[in-house]
Amino acid sequence: MTVMYNRVALIGLGLIASSLFWAMKRGGLAGETVGYARSAATRDTARNIGLCDRICDSVADAVADADLVILCVPVGAMDAVAAEIGPLLKTGAVVSDVGSVKRAVIDAVSPHIPDGVHFIPAHPLAGTEQSGPESGFAELFDNRWCLLTPNGADAAEVAKLRTYWEALGSNVDEMDADHHDLVLAVTSHTPHLIAYTMVGVADDLSRVSESEVVQFSATGFRDFTRIAASDPTMWRDVFLNNKDATLEILGRFTEELFALQRAIRQGDGDLLHDYFTRTRSIRRGIIEAGQDTDAPNFGRYPKP
Amino acid sequence: MTVMYNRVALIGLGLIASSLFWAMKRGGLAGETVGYARSAATRDTARNIGLCDRICDSVADAVADADLVILCVPVGAMDAVAAEIGPLLKTGAVVSDVGSVKRAVIDAVSPHIPDGVHFIPAHPLAGTEQSGPESGFAELFDNRWCLLTPNGADAAEVAKLRTYWEALGSNVDEMDADHHDLVLAVTSHTPHLIAYTMVGVADDLSRVSESEVVQFSATGFRDFTRIAASDPTMWRDVFLNNKDATLEILGRFTEELFALQRAIRQGDGDLLHDYFTRTRSIRRGIIEAGQDTDAPNFGRYPKP
Repeated sequence: MTVMYNRVALIGLGLIASSLFWAMKRGGLAGETVGYARSAATRDTARNIGLCDRICDSVADAVADADLVILCVPVGAMDAVAAEIGPLLKTGAVVSDVGSVKRAVIDAVSPHIPDGVHFIPAHPLAGTEQSGPESGFAELFDNRWCLLTPNGADAAEVAKLRTYWEALGSNVDEMDADHHDLVLAVTSHTPHLIAYTMVGVADDLSRVSESEVVQFSATGFRDFTRIAASDPTMWRDVFLNNKDATLEILGRFTEELFALQRAIRQGDGDLLHDYFTRTRSIRRGIIEAGQDTDAPNFGRYPKP
Repeated sequence: MTVMYNRVALIGLGLIASSLFWAMKRGGLAGETVGYARSAATRDTARNIGLCDRICDSVADAVADADLVILCVPVGAMDAVAAEIGPLLKTGAVVSDVGSVKRAVIDAVSPHIPDGVHFIPAHPLAGTEQSGPESGFAELFDNRWCLLTPNGADAAEVAKLRTYWEALGSNVDEMDADHHDLVLAVTSHTPHLIAYTMVGVADDLSRVSESEVVQFSATGFRDFTRIAASDPTMWRDVFLNNKDATLEILGRFTEELFALQRAIRQGDGDLLHDYFTRTRSIRRGIIEAGQDTDAPNFGRYPKP
């Protein structure tokens, strides 16, 4: 229980911000945590469930005298929020964020950061398909990665923020913002777009009823629907702000998909079998890296 | 504990067959269960873990005097197995299967079924990414659907097989084989192909290392790797034997994906937001239908 920042301000009170509060509380990492959300209803909910030590009705109150300000708003809202808080930040404060895209956030936020304030972008690779202030929980970041893209920020402050994320339960790594955006296009953004698309196709088919899709969503589709249930605003902003990398990976995906489609049409079983065998090894790597469990269907069933 | 079939023969001893044995044992549904697998190593493993009351070294021994024969082999092996056992089946016996495709199985198996034997195709919508005789467990079919495509089989025998699957823990529905193949192309086969493709793309990218893909496989990609870890032989046979429906749904998928891709390129945030909002409702339907839980990430995290 070591206080790392005397006052932490959370701007935006969704899944990530609410989990940050509970995880900071668990670890005793903040002297005081204040929160702000644009929506009065969200602020009321946050107050009702005891989120943060204090919920402010203005973003100015929230960031006043804050030592660490974490922007937990959708990527598309970063520019406006940064413009509003920039002039109010105290010298020596650290500003960070939790956006899923890093180059666009740097471009949006950096111009509003005054001299003497440290901007250190961050991206915790953690989440569920749920959203809103009531969806947070202290364990969200445990054993998950948090990627920092320091972009030339003060090394001592970067080291301190790194320690803070480790105290929240995360493993931390640093990388270049553009490389981050490409890696995430592969491991997160394109998979989400594909899942959204497949669920949309199912919804559109007139010869298969929605109740059939719902009832008979065996493994496979069921996982897609979970992914495709994520917050629409957050994901809209991800795709609009990681356009180049997402389009590049989508192009590769389409190319590969067409090759498999041709193999099906031509009855090329060897190609299909070889392809499906190769993809198994990646799964083993993920289990060995501790990013998932080998329990069948992630504990939907008891372990045999 | 009511014995429904005096002797049940399981042909093939993978995930589904081994789960059938444990579920039958739990319910006391079979007087005796015998098993057969083509591979001697699989038969040895089955014997070592106590799978079935008896493991036979020939398929002829396994089906001799059986009242219910369940073909639990990949779809592409159904023809050869049916040809071999057809002449050996006793009058009044029921032959069923667990294949993920139904029209191709009917075409492959029916010609080998003698008069006086009832062929009732079945497909339990249950599975995990694991395979082999050691992967089975009694609860696999609990609260999952099993689809029968009776194809004109004797109504009394169909009703009995339905009761049997209910006793295994399943909900049972009946449908036409072609319609089954279309529904499954949407809810299972195409999602699997897409997951395999995305995992293959990630594996191929030279600018993103495999260790980065493995380490930073946040939600989204991680689910894809689980799907893409499924048995390659089973899935090769699914695609080769449900070619038309899979290619049709793939065509629809590509069309929709291109529309979303264009929206990203053109920066059409409204289209993306509307699309992502629509897909959320399907998820709610699946949770209400009891096919999944609303626990975040399926119990990867504790419930908040």
